[in-house]
Amino acid sequence: MSVELVQAAALLGAGIAALGGVGAGLGQGIATAYAVEAVSRQPEARSSIMNTLFIGCAITESTGIYALVISLLLILLKG
Amino acid sequence: MSVELVQAAALLGAGIAALGGVGAGLGQGIATAYAVEAVSRQPEARSSIMNTLFIGCAITESTGIYALVISLLLILLKG
Amino acid sequence: MSVELVQAAALLGAGIAALGGVGAGLGQGIATAYAVEAVSRQPEARSSIMNTLFIGCAITESTGIYALVISLLLILLKG
Amino acid sequence: MSVELVQAAALLGAGIAALGGVGAGLGQGIATAYAVEAVSRQPEARSSIMNTLFIGCAITESTGIYALVISLLLILLKG
Amino acid sequence: MSVELVQAAALLGAGIAALGGVGAGLGQGIATAYAVEAVSRQPEARSSIMNTLFIGCAITESTGIYALVISLLLILLKG
Amino acid sequence: MSVELVQAAALLGAGIAALGGVGAGLGQGIATAYAVEAVSRQPEARSSIMNTLFIGCAITESTGIYALVISLLLILLKG
Amino acid sequence: MSVELVQAAALLGAGIAALGGVGAGLGQGIATAYAVEAVSRQPEARSSIMNTLFIGCAITESTGIYALVISLLLILLKG
Amino acid sequence: MSVELVQAAALLGAGIAALGGVGAGLGQGIATAYAVEAVSRQPEARSSIMNTLFIGCAITESTGIYALVISLLLILLKG
Amino acid sequence: MSVELVQAAALLGAGIAALGGVGAGLGQGIATAYAVEAVSRQPEARSSIMNTLFIGCAITESTGIYALVISLLLILLKG
Amino acid sequence: MSVELVQAAALLGAGIAALGGVGAGLGQGIATAYAVEAVSRQPEARSSIMNTLFIGCAITESTGIYALVISLLLILLKG
Amino acid sequence: MSVELVQAAALLGAGIAALGGVGAGLGQGIATAYAVEAVSRQPEARSSIMNTLFIGCAITESTGIYALVISLLLILLKG
Amino acid sequence: MSVELVQAAALLGAGIAALGGVGAGLGQGIATAYAVEAVSRQPEARSSIMNTLFIGCAITESTGIYALVISLLLILLKG
Amino acid sequence: MSVELVQAAALLGAGIAALGGVGAGLGQGIATAYAVEAVSRQPEARSSIMNTLFIGCAITESTGIYALVISLLLILLKG
Amino acid sequence: MSVELVQAAALLGAGIAALGGVGAGLGQGIATAYAVEAVSRQPEARSSIMNTLFIGCAITESTGIYALVISLLLILLKG
Repeated sequence: MSVELVQAAALLGAGIAALGGVGAGLGQGIATAYAVEAVSRQPEARSSIMNTLFIGCAITESTGIYALVISLLLILLKG
Repeated sequence: MSVELVQAAALLGAGIAALGGVGAGLGQGIATAYAVEAVSRQPEARSSIMNTLFIGCAITESTGIYALVISLLLILLKG
Repeated sequence: MSVELVQAAALLGAGIAALGGVGAGLGQGIATAYAVEAVSRQPEARSSIMNTLFIGCAITESTGIYALVISLLLILLKG
Repeated sequence: MSVELVQAAALLGAGIAALGGVGAGLGQGIATAYAVEAVSRQPEARSSIMNTLFIGCAITESTGIYALVISLLLILLKG
Repeated sequence: MSVELVQAAALLGAGIAALGGVGAGLGQGIATAYAVEAVSRQPEARSSIMNTLFIGCAITESTGIYALVISLLLILLKG
Repeated sequence: MSVELVQAAALLGAGIAALGGVGAGLGQGIATAYAVEAVSRQPEARSSIMNTLFIGCAITESTGIYALVISLLLILLKG
Repeated sequence: MSVELVQAAALLGAGIAALGGVGAGLGQGIATAYAVEAVSRQPEARSSIMNTLFIGCAITESTGIYALVISLLLILLKG
Repeated sequence: MSVELVQAAALLGAGIAALGGVGAGLGQGIATAYAVEAVSRQPEARSSIMNTLFIGCAITESTGIYALVISLLLILLKG
Repeated sequence: MSVELVQAAALLGAGIAALGGVGAGLGQGIATAYAVEAVSRQPEARSSIMNTLFIGCAITESTGIYALVISLLLILLKG
Repeated sequence: MSVELVQAAALLGAGIAALGGVGAGLGQGIATAYAVEAVSRQPEARSSIMNTLFIGCAITESTGIYALVISLLLILLKG
Repeated sequence: MSVELVQAAALLGAGIAALGGVGAGLGQGIATAYAVEAVSRQPEARSSIMNTLFIGCAITESTGIYALVISLLLILLKG
Repeated sequence: MSVELVQAAALLGAGIAALGGVGAGLGQGIATAYAVEAVSRQPEARSSIMNTLFIGCAITESTGIYALVISLLLILLKG
Repeated sequence: MSVELVQAAALLGAGIAALGGVGAGLGQGIATAYAVEAVSRQPEARSSIMNTLFIGCAITESTGIYALVISLLLILLKG
Repeated sequence: MSVELVQAAALLGAGIAALGGVGAGLGQGIATAYAVEAVSRQPEARSSIMNTLFIGCAITESTGIYALVISLLLILLKG
């Protein structure tokens, strides 16, 4: 059972690690809300707003991706 | 029982990982709320607002999808 | 008892996964609140507002459906 | 005792899953609050407001129903 | 002791499920607060406000009733 | 000890279920706060305000009563 | 030890149930705060304000009393 | 050890029950804050404000006293 | 070991009960903040403000003292 | 090991009790923030403001001291 | 089983550590929201805004990267 | 192992007690924020503001120091 | 297994310690948000704003680095 | 295994203690945000603002350092 305990811990840990994207998901949703409001007030600045949203969300996405990477590593490498 | 412990941990982990979309769900709801308010004030900018909402929610969706992927991997691959 | 431990973990995990729709439920409620307020101020833009609410809530619903899918998979496939 | 462990986990999971409607309940209450305020300010738009409230709450209800379905499945199918 | 474990889990689960009405209770209280404020400002629209409050709270009540149903099922059917 | 385990779980569950009125208690307190403020500004609409408060709190009370019913059932029927 | 396990669970449950008045206590405090502010602005409406505060707090008190009743039942009847 | 388990549970439950006054304590502090502000603006209405604060806090105190009573009962009667 | 289990539970419970003053501490801090602001705006009403702060904090202190009493009882009487 | 279990519980309880000053610490920080703002706007009322801050924080400190006393009692008397 | 316990703890710890980016993710999302709003109001200052956002998010990213580093170290070095 | 259990509990308790400064740290940060804003608006009152900040933070520091003292006592005296 | 228990505790503790940067990450994100808004309103003061942001974030970073140091010490020295 | 249990508890406690800087990190981030805003509005008062920020953050840092000290003591002295 020795190896299985390690695998079990890895898979349980992967499930916990998947929660690591909660902050990024909430943050990106708030950013989208502000972008929608900004576009409705200055439709002529829409391309600037969308670019800012893209770049900001790409940065924010990073912490969500970190959690994904940890989860995948735990499942595929150690599970 | 050794293999079953790994499977049990994987399935329990999948249940925990399914909570990882809470942040994205709340964020998208807030973004929708702002979009509804924006459309009611500038109905003429509706297509711009909807496009922004679509793109922003698509990005936000990512962290929810990460959690789904981890859950499915844990269920189908290791469960 | 080996197989039963896996089933027990799957069913317990399904119960936990069912909490994954809390964020989406709260978000959709907030979006509905804004839609109600928007309709009362611009009744003439009602169809635009309702369309935006439908589309936004459909996107938001996704994370709730992910949780449902994980729960059902855990119950029917592994329970 | 093997089968009973599965049943026990299913029934405990059903109890946890019943918490999944908390978000929807809070969200619908907020939506009702906004609807009440909107009706008091524009009584002439009451039918539009009520329709929006109905449709929005019907969508919001979905995540609460998902939790109910998971709970019932766990009790009746696996309990 | 096998059957008793199932019964114990069902009764413990019923206690946890009874918490599922917290969101609905808080939401209805907020809706009542807004209704009281609305009535004090537009006493002439009182019947419209009360109707809206009744219908909105009836919808909100649903998630509280779901939790009650799950609790009763767990106690009477499986306890 | 088999029957006692069921009774112990029922009584512990009753204690947890008694927390189910927290949301209703907080909500009714907020509604009372708004009612007090409304009465102080429109003392002439006092009977309308009190009626609204009574009806709204009666509805809100329901989720608190659900929790009480579950607790009593668990204590008297299964304890 | 069989009977003692039931008693122990009842007494532990009574301690948890005593937390059920937290929501009512916070809500009544907020209502008192609004009443104090209202009295300071309209001292002539003081009797109306106090009556509203009394009635509202009496209703709010109910969920706190439910928790007290459950605790006492658990201690005196089952402890 | 049978009787001691009951006593141990009673004393642990008493410690948990002592947390039941947190809501009342926070609420009374907020009420005091509003009273201080009200007195500074209408010093001539000071006696009315203090009376309202006394009565409101006396009601709020009830949930804190409930928790105290449960704790004392658990310690002195069952500990 | 029978008596020691009771003592251990009493001392652990005393530690938990000491957290019961958190609400009162936060509430008194907020009341002090409002008193400081009120004194800076109406220095001539300082004695009235201080009296109100004293009386309000004395009432608020009660829930903190309840927690202290429970903790001391648990340590000195049962520890 | 009988006596050591009591000591271990006392020392663990002392660690938990040390968290009881969190509320007082946060509250005093907020009071200080308001005092700083008040001094910057009415520098001439500085001595009145500082006196109010001193007295208010002295009262607030009480719940932090209660937690300290419980911790010290648990360490020195029972540890 | 001795070595496996260490590995299991390392992999479970890696899963917990992956939650360390939640704060950074939420913070970066809020920063993006402000940047989007700023760009829509001063499109001419877009390059300055983007530079500030880049630098600020790079600093914020650090705590997320710390969590990633700890997770990777735990998986690859000790898992 | 008897003495070691006491030491282990003391060291674990010391780790938990170290969290007792969280409230003071957050409160002092808020006070600093208000001081910075106050200095920027009334640079001529800077010495008064800094004195108030020093004294207020010194008082706030107390609860953090209590936690430090408890931790050190637990480590050095009992660990 | 004696040494392995210590290593396991160290590695689990390292995972928990990695959460210590959550506060710093959220705080730096808020600071970045304010910096972005400030730059968009006073682009001419950009270098002053960036310097302030750098210095403030460097100080804030410290608590995140503390958590990193503890984690690394636990992994490399004791793991 | 006796000594190892103490070491394990010390290292686990060190991991928990590392969370004690969360409050200070969030507080310093908020202070930095206010400083950035203050500098952008009164660039001429920049040195006063920075001095206030330095001193305030130095005081705030203390609770973070306390947590670091406890962690290091637990690792190096007792681990």
